[in-house]
Amino acid sequence: MAIILSVNSGSSSVKVSIYKSSKQGQDPIQLADAQISGLTAPPAKLSYQRGSENIKGQEVKDINSNEDACEYILDHLVKDNSLSEISSRDDITYACHRVVHGGDYPTAHVIDEDTYHHLEDLTDLAPLHNTSALAIVKACMKALPKATNIAYFDSSFHATIPEAVRTYAIDPKVAQRNKLRKYGFHGISYAFITRAVAQYLNKPESETSLIALHLGSGASACAIKSGKSLDTSMGLTPLAGLPGATRSGDVDPSLIFHFTHDAGKPSPSSTKEMHISTAEEILNKKSGWKALTGTTDFGEISSSQDPACKLAFEIFVDRLIHFIGSYYVKLEGEVDALVFAGGIGEKGALLRTRIVEKCRCLGFGLDEQTNNNKIEDVVRDIGMEGARYRTLVCQTDEQFEMARQCAAGLEGN
Amino acid sequence: MAIILSVNSGSSSVKVSIYKSSKQGQDPIQLADAQISGLTAPPAKLSYQRGSENIKGQEVKDINSNEDACEYILDHLVKDNSLSEISSRDDITYACHRVVHGGDYPTAHVIDEDTYHHLEDLTDLAPLHNTSALAIVKACMKALPKATNIAYFDSSFHATIPEAVRTYAIDPKVAQRNKLRKYGFHGISYAFITRAVAQYLNKPESETSLIALHLGSGASACAIKSGKSLDTSMGLTPLAGLPGATRSGDVDPSLIFHFTHDAGKPSPSSTKEMHISTAEEILNKKSGWKALTGTTDFGEISSSQDPACKLAFEIFVDRLIHFIGSYYVKLEGEVDALVFAGGIGEKGALLRTRIVEKCRCLGFGLDEQTNNNKIEDVVRDIGMEGARYRTLVCQTDEQFEMARQCAAGLEGN
Repeated sequence: MAIILSVNSGSSSVKVSIYKSSKQGQDPIQLADAQISGLTAPPAKLSYQRGSENIKGQEVKDINSNEDACEYILDHLVKDNSLSEISSRDDITYACHRVVHGGDYPTAHVIDEDTYHHLEDLTDLAPLHNTSALAIVKACMKALPKATNIAYFDSSFHATIPEAVRTYAIDPKVAQRNKLRKYGFHGISYAFITRAVAQYLNKPESETSLIALHLGSGASACAIKSGKSLDTSMGLTPLAGLPGATRSGDVDPSLIFHFTHDAGKPSPSSTKEMHISTAEEILNKKSGWKALTGTTDFGEISSSQDPACKLAFEIFVDRLIHFIGSYYVKLEGEVDALVFAGGIGEKGALLRTRIVEKCRCLGFGLDEQTNNNKIEDVVRDIGMEGARYRTLVCQTDEQFEMARQCAAGLEGN
Repeated sequence: MAIILSVNSGSSSVKVSIYKSSKQGQDPIQLADAQISGLTAPPAKLSYQRGSENIKGQEVKDINSNEDACEYILDHLVKDNSLSEISSRDDITYACHRVVHGGDYPTAHVIDEDTYHHLEDLTDLAPLHNTSALAIVKACMKALPKATNIAYFDSSFHATIPEAVRTYAIDPKVAQRNKLRKYGFHGISYAFITRAVAQYLNKPESETSLIALHLGSGASACAIKSGKSLDTSMGLTPLAGLPGATRSGDVDPSLIFHFTHDAGKPSPSSTKEMHISTAEEILNKKSGWKALTGTTDFGEISSSQDPACKLAFEIFVDRLIHFIGSYYVKLEGEVDALVFAGGIGEKGALLRTRIVEKCRCLGFGLDEQTNNNKIEDVVRDIGMEGARYRTLVCQTDEQFEMARQCAAGLEGN
């Protein structure tokens, strides 16, 4: 039996899901879920769920970093007597880490010294995204010397994007030297979606083609052809494409120079480990729904009658149908389904209604009643009977996907 | 009778077309065409065409600026005895100027002191594009004191783009203060295309909906709904959207900070009148086909077997179908035709073949024979018989469009 930890580290939280895997190739079984949030606004808070035990937002002292959070969670797991599978840290076999930017890595990778240094180099491409993941990888390598640490990259799923799609129309010498191309992200989620939807449709993944939308505080769209990424809306970094909670998404590449004269200067948020320009700080952290409406909660935006919220909602509809139309053509109309996933994709019934209405000309249609019901299955068909293409909601689970790929023997995507 | 000059001033050339208009509302008749090119690589060269007279690339001395070029052309027109309509500069009634960025101006505008200063302010938004136009406006105001100077803006046609489409997901206070929104360009051309295609289809413009592509050294796409712009690929400046001869088009908004540490610094090409950042210089002038292949000639790229050219060609196909799919959905499938225009759109039979093939799933199809014939009409149907939607080529003429609008009594689009 292997015990697998799936670790998802953000700038202000650390989430860990614990699984056991009895047999290679069999889906792992979740044992518990732990999360420390509020790292940037102490006191930090613990949430823990195992069976019927449920701790929610319990204040914890002296937790000031991702490392502290990692240590605290590991201690909590060992001390939880009802979690009989973990009686010491040495019982943990694998720690799977979600790493946003994996550069050219086309698959997950066991983290050794070399990999770690390569990941450090990549951090320059995605400082806002990789820094916290690397901090936790380091902490886990120290805290779990007997475990195998594996990096799962959000970019790996998109390694199949064709050259013409991933190449920017810029000086190819600089592009090559500085590794400037479209990478794409949310790939762990798209791998989950592809597999889950293929299963639901009872087709092999290699015959499943989707327009998939992962809509959370970061949002992206992906054209999946025969189970493989053909295009995605994020680019060199997660900034490109759709707007998000605090992210602008695509803007005229010269806009930032008309936004501030300080665009190229280092952001005051830069640290020794994380070098970011003022431009990157503004476009990643001070834009999006928050800048437009004052809130990052898209549910609130969707139901508000405030003109700023209504505008933000319509902006998202506009940008989403832009990518759906584009990906429909890129897939040459060979599409099994339009799939909504991520927090907003799963909960946003009104958004789904508006989007699918706009895409009626392509052959999509909603069953309004199913669309408005709470989604409880992993995949739910919300499409209209007789519509040319299916419309689905998928409850994606990146933690599970990492554990599953790990249990499958690293063969995954 | 009115004599109308249509002036199109670029960074290295000045083009002037001369028309007479006998009656308000009637289309003007072209009398002659003059061009001075090579302003940035002296000696400058004159091309002139009137009836059967045809001067091509004649070297002219001491022409060092747009003003010099303007003076030279005016003298040439007055001295041409066969051009009986112009015996002195005072015979010129109107000078129509193509100005790229018109900010909030929804229509053409007679240039007085106020307008001129407002245009100077706008130059900060589009320094690479408005500077040369303003230089020639100034020269014409001085050289033709009796004529009425009118500015026709490439952005005006897009004044109808809905708020959600033109709004970027950035801080709205800064956006408003610094006038940061999608404007869109090539609007004089799109006005020509809309009118010409509506006439060809024998429909009122207000019932004509198109996906129009203006593909020249600068390239853009436009969704035209009921005769009005609904969306377009260029943005705050002409940089956004499709790649061009030396322009990157859309890239991850943070890319430039990974391209060079000097992104925010003033470009060495900046002048007293033109302030541009190194980033804007690189993305507008040192990218696109030229950076990818070494040539700006898309015809050469299309027919080359060189891998870099083949890649550039496929990049253009990918970006074009991206916008066609998007605009098809934005128009909710109510499309009269896909229209190819601009030098590359008119001449690029191979590009048209690849594009329309990719868009077959939407209901477009080509008649390969008509597609390969030289296009001689203003509008030519190259669509397959029985295809759901028409595919057209339109020989757009911005000079004529300005003269036509001028003759129509300043009533604009």
